[in-house]
Amino acid sequence: MSHKVYVVGIGPGDFEQMTVKAARVLKESDVIIGYTVYIDLVRDHLPGKEFLSTPMTKEADRCRMAFSEAQKGRTVSMICSGDAGVYGMAGLMYEIGAKYPDIELEIVPGVTAATAGAALLGAPLTHDFCVISLSDLLTPWALIEERLLAASKADFAVCLYNPSSKKRQDYLKKACDLMLQYKSPDTVCGIGKMIGRQGQEKELMTLERLRDTGVDMFTTVFVGNSQTKVVSGAMVTPRGYKDV
Amino acid sequence: MSHKVYVVGIGPGDFEQMTVKAARVLKESDVIIGYTVYIDLVRDHLPGKEFLSTPMTKEADRCRMAFSEAQKGRTVSMICSGDAGVYGMAGLMYEIGAKYPDIELEIVPGVTAATAGAALLGAPLTHDFCVISLSDLLTPWALIEERLLAASKADFAVCLYNPSSKKRQDYLKKACDLMLQYKSPDTVCGIGKMIGRQGQEKELMTLERLRDTGVDMFTTVFVGNSQTKVVSGAMVTPRGYKDV
Repeated sequence: MSHKVYVVGIGPGDFEQMTVKAARVLKESDVIIGYTVYIDLVRDHLPGKEFLSTPMTKEADRCRMAFSEAQKGRTVSMICSGDAGVYGMAGLMYEIGAKYPDIELEIVPGVTAATAGAALLGAPLTHDFCVISLSDLLTPWALIEERLLAASKADFAVCLYNPSSKKRQDYLKKACDLMLQYKSPDTVCGIGKMIGRQGQEKELMTLERLRDTGVDMFTTVFVGNSQTKVVSGAMVTPRGYKDV
Repeated sequence: MSHKVYVVGIGPGDFEQMTVKAARVLKESDVIIGYTVYIDLVRDHLPGKEFLSTPMTKEADRCRMAFSEAQKGRTVSMICSGDAGVYGMAGLMYEIGAKYPDIELEIVPGVTAATAGAALLGAPLTHDFCVISLSDLLTPWALIEERLLAASKADFAVCLYNPSSKKRQDYLKKACDLMLQYKSPDTVCGIGKMIGRQGQEKELMTLERLRDTGVDMFTTVFVGNSQTKVVSGAMVTPRGYKDV
């Protein structure tokens, strides 16, 4: 008998922001596994459901937990905020899943912070863009620097995930200094905090001011390309239509 | 009285792949406006609803239609496939909306082809990535070239939108030749066709073979970074966890 694990992106936060399919899959699952913060976002909408978790740094243990629950014959959902395939658990689930060939894996996509935050700020990502994480826990900082410079030189709009943490308070400043080598200090930027959750905030600013702005780990940062402008209080990267 | 236009990303195709909020907003709208192909994706799920459209190249007209319907006091949804903010209508709606200051605009995000296609293929975008459109209708080809080279040199995973059309049949080949200046011919790549719709297909291949593969305008292309690998038939870009 073939058992199944779903890896479900629950979107930015509010239950309404997950897809209709994600909501159905969670309702049909016997057990839902995830980081406690994510479980707290869905628990009230799924009364009577069994929830399991592991601490924040124990991602691989959490994956093994999912497969071993599935081996008991249960339908399992592993939940991630945003989309499971963007800095989420989808990759690790495949890697660990290679040791559980009898378990089928299905990724259920969700709205990631890049597009949820873009919708909050206006339309910053309607042209080519890069998504870069400033976390150097799993990536050498030199590679992050190289990507920031390449993205800026080729005039991409840029969306930054994990722009700060307690141990990395000056990383956004360092990233801005790199981008300022190619992008104008007047480049339109925006930040979204607690996107799609209680306490949601947004703010537009120049790249020069972003450099000196404090952000936290719940912030997603948007840096425009050279065409990005402010329209009626929104951050807008034009696609180039001529008949506006 | 303030009227409202929603710009709604309906996700890749199947009604179940839009968010719970998007489905609610469409149900609450008086009129739904969009390109005919998108209207056909939702029509059967919204019986009795009024639908309006304009031909494919008349995007600005479609936007003005939305605002003028809202000025009549109606609740309007402009629909886009995927996410309205990724090569969608969100930017143009803000630009044209500047002439309709009495109408409020809200962008309702959706699952874009990058994340829907990633979920179909495995987990190709779990590390830093670039999204690049190969359409030069609104963008000079020289800029697209520059971005392809920059993304490849800095070892980003790359997701290509609009990889081909009747007039641009050799663009994917040209793009691959550029990426091959920095990426290995063995780089793991994947394509998704009709993602989330009837007739969905997927295929993994090397960058060398992608170069000689025919794609159509309903295809989204994924090019791995140097770490991307095939795991149990899926395209996986590892995040770098050590305890796999």
